[in-house]
Amino acid sequence: MTAVTPLPVCVLGLGLIGGSLVRAAARRGRTAFGYNRSDAGAAAARADGFDASTDLEAVLRRAAAQHALIVLATPVDTLDALLPTIARLAPDCVLTDVVSVKEPVAGAVARLHPGARYVGGHPMAGTSQSGWAATDPALFDDAMWMVSTEDGADPDVWLDVATLARDCGAQVVPAANDAHDRAVAAISHLPHLTANATAAVGAGESGLALRLAAGSFRDGTRVAGTAPALQRAMLEANRIALLNTLSETIDRLVAARDDLRDSGSVAIIVDDGHRARTAYEEMAATPAPPIVDVEPGEDGWAAQMRRQAHLGHTWQR
Amino acid sequence: MTAVTPLPVCVLGLGLIGGSLVRAAARRGRTAFGYNRSDAGAAAARADGFDASTDLEAVLRRAAAQHALIVLATPVDTLDALLPTIARLAPDCVLTDVVSVKEPVAGAVARLHPGARYVGGHPMAGTSQSGWAATDPALFDDAMWMVSTEDGADPDVWLDVATLARDCGAQVVPAANDAHDRAVAAISHLPHLTANATAAVGAGESGLALRLAAGSFRDGTRVAGTAPALQRAMLEANRIALLNTLSETIDRLVAARDDLRDSGSVAIIVDDGHRARTAYEEMAATPAPPIVDVEPGEDGWAAQMRRQAHLGHTWQR
Repeated sequence: MTAVTPLPVCVLGLGLIGGSLVRAAARRGRTAFGYNRSDAGAAAARADGFDASTDLEAVLRRAAAQHALIVLATPVDTLDALLPTIARLAPDCVLTDVVSVKEPVAGAVARLHPGARYVGGHPMAGTSQSGWAATDPALFDDAMWMVSTEDGADPDVWLDVATLARDCGAQVVPAANDAHDRAVAAISHLPHLTANATAAVGAGESGLALRLAAGSFRDGTRVAGTAPALQRAMLEANRIALLNTLSETIDRLVAARDDLRDSGSVAIIVDDGHRARTAYEEMAATPAPPIVDVEPGEDGWAAQMRRQAHLGHTWQR
Repeated sequence: MTAVTPLPVCVLGLGLIGGSLVRAAARRGRTAFGYNRSDAGAAAARADGFDASTDLEAVLRRAAAQHALIVLATPVDTLDALLPTIARLAPDCVLTDVVSVKEPVAGAVARLHPGARYVGGHPMAGTSQSGWAATDPALFDDAMWMVSTEDGADPDVWLDVATLARDCGAQVVPAANDAHDRAVAAISHLPHLTANATAAVGAGESGLALRLAAGSFRDGTRVAGTAPALQRAMLEANRIALLNTLSETIDRLVAARDDLRDSGSVAIIVDDGHRARTAYEEMAATPAPPIVDVEPGEDGWAAQMRRQAHLGHTWQR
């Protein structure tokens, strides 16, 4: 099974997520170091006492020498450039990523680093801030961290990645890549589109409207404040799943408009939405039960873990 | 101009807004008393040391005897029953309301209490909680409080209502009823519809989706947690303005879907939304400049106040 001594952690990209990951791993006593493309980001990390460099090749050679776990924490559109370099300089390192879509990343890894010891991941944490200045070692505390759990996954690699998530304070949610991408389209990417539309309509109404805007507008449009390039990279990488969930949303809003126009009622959309929000609040208020009776590497372990995760359980070892 | 001694405040309906108003007015040293339909609500207010009764006629007779300022703080669909009783028992009292739409309330007052000394209002404050238990004397601190500022408004009544808003800690936003109703359709009622649609789509996707839901879903669907009856009363009372703003939102989402499908891009909706959110954040971070050079009762005072409010100024006397 997994190594007794946890692997050093090598993070590529020291933005909000990658930088927080370095801090969280270090908080737990793990060796962590990183690469950042910009001088400013790397210098900011070094100023806070962390080991950061802008020399990608040197960082990857060190990762290879130390058998580090490499974490891809750069935007999805940078992976095509990074992966061949990793394949060349650190081919045997365990590899994961924290990108918000999983099928496109798995596809890029299969194409550009086909022998990779790779298991993807996605921590469900973030703010509308970005960059090293926004990093926080507690960002992942009690967050959900999806770890890709496909049939045929290498259980040792899976355990290395899941253990990193646990060491960062998160709970592990095992899932298949396609199910993950559909889920985040609905609960993460769609809320960006509705927030952006709501913000634009509100601001377009009048100066009076923005002056009167209070809690429902403030909270409902918060994620529209995320840097546009980050929003676009995230949403456009999940195009197919997002198209489906956006179409369903449009259908619901059109039905609500027809009901409001024809009968003066918004009962259906309000009742459906309130029931859904209540279910979410109840789930969020209840500690997730642990995944039990399955060990990585056993027959059918991946399917068994996914089944329990679909019922709301998390891996908490 | 307005009386030197502030009027006692008589609040009809001791839910989140009405109850908080009693507490805020009392905090400022004003005499405040209230009516609540349910025994439980009135008893909860009395248990906290406030003067509350379930006897509507007795409360209104007291308001008439004390020349109190009466505040309608019940759902919009109760006004048709309340207004004739007010007209009968306290016809000369200054009257305002805190209902989230202004044209329907003004219409009901004109119909059922035509001689009323009425100026409407709408404090932009609230939570997804309801009832006396959720009341807070600081609910209105620094909130925006729209005060209806129509041509021909009685300046003494206007000042009584605006002074109540100031005494509760709010800033006064003078506006016409129709402009207010369009504005709140965009920045308050529309966010309810998008929150409800987003919640329903997210919860319908899978148990995995709700388990992975994090900040963007939590904040983007918060107001879907408001009691359905309160959401329906608020939204359905503003049907025409809400239909317009909902249609614009649907158009934006349909355009985003077409762009995403045809070119793989969400640039337009993200850029528009980010620009709007940035404008909102800048406005929210900057203290509102005061309305100047106009006194209620001067020639053209209402139009002058509305003009300044449209530029983002508030009445802060």
